[in-house]
Amino acid sequence: MPELPVGLLGCGTVGLGVARIILEKAELIRSRVGVDIRLAGVADINADAVRDLGLAPGVFTTDAVSIAEDPNIPVVIELIGGKTVARDLILRALSLGKSVVTANKALIASHHAEIAETAEKGNGELYYEASVGGCMPVIKTLREALAGNRVESAFGILNGTCNYILTRIAEDKLSYEQALAEAQQQGFAEADPFLDVSGMDTAHKLAIVVALSHGSWVELSDIYVEGISRLTPMDIEFAADFGYRIKLLAITKNRGNRIEARVHPTMVPFDNLLASVNGAMNAVKIVGDATGEMVLYGQGAGRMPTASAVVSDLCDIARNRACGIKNRLPIFSFRPGTAKPMDLLPMSEVETSYYMRFAAQDRPGVLSKIAGALGKQNISISSVHQKGRKTEGPVPIVLLTHRAREADVMAALDEIANIDVIAERPVLIRIEEEDR
Amino acid sequence: MPELPVGLLGCGTVGLGVARIILEKAELIRSRVGVDIRLAGVADINADAVRDLGLAPGVFTTDAVSIAEDPNIPVVIELIGGKTVARDLILRALSLGKSVVTANKALIASHHAEIAETAEKGNGELYYEASVGGCMPVIKTLREALAGNRVESAFGILNGTCNYILTRIAEDKLSYEQALAEAQQQGFAEADPFLDVSGMDTAHKLAIVVALSHGSWVELSDIYVEGISRLTPMDIEFAADFGYRIKLLAITKNRGNRIEARVHPTMVPFDNLLASVNGAMNAVKIVGDATGEMVLYGQGAGRMPTASAVVSDLCDIARNRACGIKNRLPIFSFRPGTAKPMDLLPMSEVETSYYMRFAAQDRPGVLSKIAGALGKQNISISSVHQKGRKTEGPVPIVLLTHRAREADVMAALDEIANIDVIAERPVLIRIEEEDR
Repeated sequence: MPELPVGLLGCGTVGLGVARIILEKAELIRSRVGVDIRLAGVADINADAVRDLGLAPGVFTTDAVSIAEDPNIPVVIELIGGKTVARDLILRALSLGKSVVTANKALIASHHAEIAETAEKGNGELYYEASVGGCMPVIKTLREALAGNRVESAFGILNGTCNYILTRIAEDKLSYEQALAEAQQQGFAEADPFLDVSGMDTAHKLAIVVALSHGSWVELSDIYVEGISRLTPMDIEFAADFGYRIKLLAITKNRGNRIEARVHPTMVPFDNLLASVNGAMNAVKIVGDATGEMVLYGQGAGRMPTASAVVSDLCDIARNRACGIKNRLPIFSFRPGTAKPMDLLPMSEVETSYYMRFAAQDRPGVLSKIAGALGKQNISISSVHQKGRKTEGPVPIVLLTHRAREADVMAALDEIANIDVIAERPVLIRIEEEDR
Repeated sequence: MPELPVGLLGCGTVGLGVARIILEKAELIRSRVGVDIRLAGVADINADAVRDLGLAPGVFTTDAVSIAEDPNIPVVIELIGGKTVARDLILRALSLGKSVVTANKALIASHHAEIAETAEKGNGELYYEASVGGCMPVIKTLREALAGNRVESAFGILNGTCNYILTRIAEDKLSYEQALAEAQQQGFAEADPFLDVSGMDTAHKLAIVVALSHGSWVELSDIYVEGISRLTPMDIEFAADFGYRIKLLAITKNRGNRIEARVHPTMVPFDNLLASVNGAMNAVKIVGDATGEMVLYGQGAGRMPTASAVVSDLCDIARNRACGIKNRLPIFSFRPGTAKPMDLLPMSEVETSYYMRFAAQDRPGVLSKIAGALGKQNISISSVHQKGRKTEGPVPIVLLTHRAREADVMAALDEIANIDVIAERPVLIRIEEEDR
């Protein structure tokens, strides 16, 4: 049986999971793949990390570069993360014609061009199933299963931390701060949760989904990104009264010559499957022109689910190398230069429907002024909700609009901000009613 | 660019969809696969079927065998269905070393051994993504994405007709007969719906899922199969009162040395994602030991969704042939002879919890007699519900049990049948509470 020596760079949470599958599932993998995947090198800055793996002498090293450059190790798994050391290692391995497996969405989203060029020049190849949606085969589905489809749209719950926080607020009436603290205690959220709650992690994943769906990359800095930290239990409750759950969604749509790509808290109707995705689970809805609506659901993070995706890539590589081939698939789904380049639709031109909550002095005529400002921009209201009444202080006025253009909404809100009885900038949450 | 001549056998609903994607999406496929997939032969018994395709002269024939045997056509798509002509054509093509694509679950479930042997001898290969779950990449996920996982269990809603009927009964209080008639009008159900509503179509798909999950085939005739035709709106309503939806599930579990494989109406708690799969949609929940719970959801039938799956196979084959390889994957997930053979767990030894509805004369002591018979078999009751009361005639007594063994339940029901005040054989519906 052919043997495939593999190098593992980074033995943290996911790395240890990958090592465990390779070591403990060797027989299963031989039975399914027909290749003996051998852990030929493992690198970490901390020798303690691999203590429990029982590695043979000489396998462990603190020098990751030596593995990336080892001519006897044709496959390298990068699980160090970040954009410095990891970038150098990946580019080095690709330039030497190796197969590289990574979960590093931040790196791919920022350095895809450099990665693709280096891989092409060096005849290397990149696999990255674990970069989006943990154990779910999102990359495989987009690159392979949907090969005959034009992807019309994709909607993803791609960050378990955010979804856990939103679920706890919705179901248990926690505040954002309480829910975040709990997510940290449970180990879902990092000590510094910025990348997660800001929506940036979701944006990294969206950039990859966009490229695989439409064949065009969007600049990370051009993606509209709004995180979850300003959501209040009040808005989550009002949303439920209207029949919606609030989820942090990554959204992309093929609008003909242009692409939508945005990340923001989004109201999703109860009967949309994404509204039922709770806790730390992830899901992606992909709409293909032939398939129609399709959903993948699963654990988007965690040691073993993410390791499973890495091993799936490893097995693909092993099958190819056993047949003597490499680069069976274009790295980013479309062969370079073959997809029609598409521009990003500016956020101001996006059309969707909206939830707006105003804090207003309870005086006659307030609603009429708000409605007037909206009407002037051709924004029509689908329902209004005025919750509770206090004798003093501002009262919430909540309304939903029909589809409107983002620029018109912003213009209306600017005008409404000048109404003297409006206490503060209104809360705005976008709604996705449709599937395309 | 390399060219791949493809033969299409059968130009019905799905066949026409496949032809349309190949003809209309040629540019997209070239851009993603780097191969020119060319419709080199199309066979149907009816020349009118291909009228609108604008095929070049000489491409259409009524002689499917000539295409299956054509040395210039290395890839054959079988969409004729059935187990006679289709079987001959598939075996012929495989014996000639061709790549064969099919959606024919009935044939695979019954003739897998013959197919595998013929393919091995002739160096042919079989792809069958469209055989289970329409557009969803169920086969790809089991064969490839989960390569490093032991599959613990799988639960599938795999027949759109049945799910449509059950949804209409649950949501719109139709009778089974009304819902079936409607499904036929809408084109979801065949004129002869037996294969669908009997659960047999689901069993064909389950046999494939079992083989790809555990590496062992089960005989179709050994699978416990119960259809939906005896379900009543009353039971569907009672189930809802207890917090459950009734779905026709294909279930398989890895029980160590043995496999569970069964198809029957199943009560699923509301908060299980499968309970939210409505209308003609399909879904599969797969639990891997590394991935944990994963769900795929999508259209399980229909022209374009099924055609999308066929084209996904075609593109896989095209990528391989462009690299000069074949048989990159074992046909049925495990390399022949490498998986531990596992026996089917007899239905009598299956353990689950149960819904039981008795029609009893409204006399004192009935419940005590029922409970006594259950207790004697160590079956404990988790809740009882006695709905409505009539002055005359039988009243329904509904109860849910904790986990019990099927054989014990049957023994208890035999004893209960002898109680004089029990009007008829009780209704029994199995419940799946857990995810494994």
